[in-house]
Amino acid sequence: MPAMSDYDIDSLDALRQRIRDFAAARAWERYHTPKNLVMALSVEAAELLEPFQWLTAEQSLQLSAEQHEAVRQEIADVLIYLTRLADVLDIDLLDAAAAKLAINARKYPVDRAHGNATKYLANQTNRDSSDD
Amino acid sequence: MPAMSDYDIDSLDALRQRIRDFAAARAWERYHTPKNLVMALSVEAAELLEPFQWLTAEQSLQLSAEQHEAVRQEIADVLIYLTRLADVLDIDLLDAAAAKLAINARKYPVDRAHGNATKYLANQTNRDSSDD
Amino acid sequence: MPAMSDYDIDSLDALRQRIRDFAAARAWERYHTPKNLVMALSVEAAELLEPFQWLTAEQSLQLSAEQHEAVRQEIADVLIYLTRLADVLDIDLLDAAAAKLAINARKYPVDRAHGNATKYLANQTNRDSSDD
Amino acid sequence: MPAMSDYDIDSLDALRQRIRDFAAARAWERYHTPKNLVMALSVEAAELLEPFQWLTAEQSLQLSAEQHEAVRQEIADVLIYLTRLADVLDIDLLDAAAAKLAINARKYPVDRAHGNATKYLANQTNRDSSDD
Repeated sequence: MPAMSDYDIDSLDALRQRIRDFAAARAWERYHTPKNLVMALSVEAAELLEPFQWLTAEQSLQLSAEQHEAVRQEIADVLIYLTRLADVLDIDLLDAAAAKLAINARKYPVDRAHGNATKYLANQTNRDSSDD
Repeated sequence: MPAMSDYDIDSLDALRQRIRDFAAARAWERYHTPKNLVMALSVEAAELLEPFQWLTAEQSLQLSAEQHEAVRQEIADVLIYLTRLADVLDIDLLDAAAAKLAINARKYPVDRAHGNATKYLANQTNRDSSDD
Repeated sequence: MPAMSDYDIDSLDALRQRIRDFAAARAWERYHTPKNLVMALSVEAAELLEPFQWLTAEQSLQLSAEQHEAVRQEIADVLIYLTRLADVLDIDLLDAAAAKLAINARKYPVDRAHGNATKYLANQTNRDSSDD
Repeated sequence: MPAMSDYDIDSLDALRQRIRDFAAARAWERYHTPKNLVMALSVEAAELLEPFQWLTAEQSLQLSAEQHEAVRQEIADVLIYLTRLADVLDIDLLDAAAAKLAINARKYPVDRAHGNATKYLANQTNRDSSDD
């Protein structure tokens, strides 16, 4: 039987199905409540912080091959849990991203936001949108 | 000129390009060091925790329309920063996910992991892989 | 020379000094910018999530001795980085906590907040205070 | 009746009691399972990341009065949830910190760790201790 690694995953839909199969084969669905999945996602996102926490910004652009591979695996973990969470909540990832970019475009019009660190540095992001 | 919202985003590659355009139009590239991007990603992942923190697992499966939309936007934020981070680090998201699922399949063989909470509850995940 | 473990730490001020000595002895101060310290703190806070992510609420109250000790060490890590961050920013931890509890008491008056899950479940916390 | 803000909080034990009273007065104890509390703690830790995510290390040392106060409140939130979590799990914060510093002293002996970024940058922290 071919190993999973023999299959390319060529779309988010394919990834979603592969993760469903993985969880179902192990009877792990009962662990995958949204509450648990958001926790797992935050754990992985924080594991992404760890390689960078003592690096300068410049060093963060010059990772060793070993560091780069570790980061690649953590990025993968975040995508896997994010895909699973979106699946369980019946959310289409690309539709959601497109909608959010449209919101962001209105919140940060190019003419006001260009090179303008002030609002960006104040990080008026989601909180701003919740004031709308 | 058509607004961004008039374009569907139909693939991760399209999302990646849309985010590049968004950041370039605002001259925000200098903020997007990997170190800063992993921080922004963790901020958004934690904003995903917030709607769930006082809910029971059951309640987490029955979000109101308002809660669901808020979660949808946070999921989008995570995907947007993850896509940008992968882009800046020249990492292909789907290739990375496929490779990590292959690693996970070896770490959690179906015969040992099926319905078996112990190892999973001990959460021997990335730490296990670092022991390989 | 007595080992560090021979000293009790009997106050937050004593802990702050012990951490200063630890970092100074290793010439680690240059890593301890606020930006780096908040990253390290988030990494540790997420390591606290990990033992709990697949547990039910009930299971989370019945940790094994091994799990309890692991959690105890992660809690310690969070306190250590929090103390260091507060020190570097010249913030008194107990004064800050007292002030924040006073703010919280105004935001959640007993008569309105008692047994009332709605506002609490909507998690109107810091965002509320930022609307003040 | 004196307002809470009329009381200084002069020790972690006093803070722990103040938080117990706060939660009891509002009948909030049922939300404070360890699982929920570690989530709330991570949310607050990530709110601490947010003011710093686009700042350089140097800028992070020169916060405005407004940014400093916002950070002070987030630090307080982390301490409040950490204190509550430790209380619910019957963990003494200062004892735990002292024990962890002793472990850290063995893991990072001064002669090997002094000015030595390599091991520190590889961030061999808790994972190292879990290999012990």
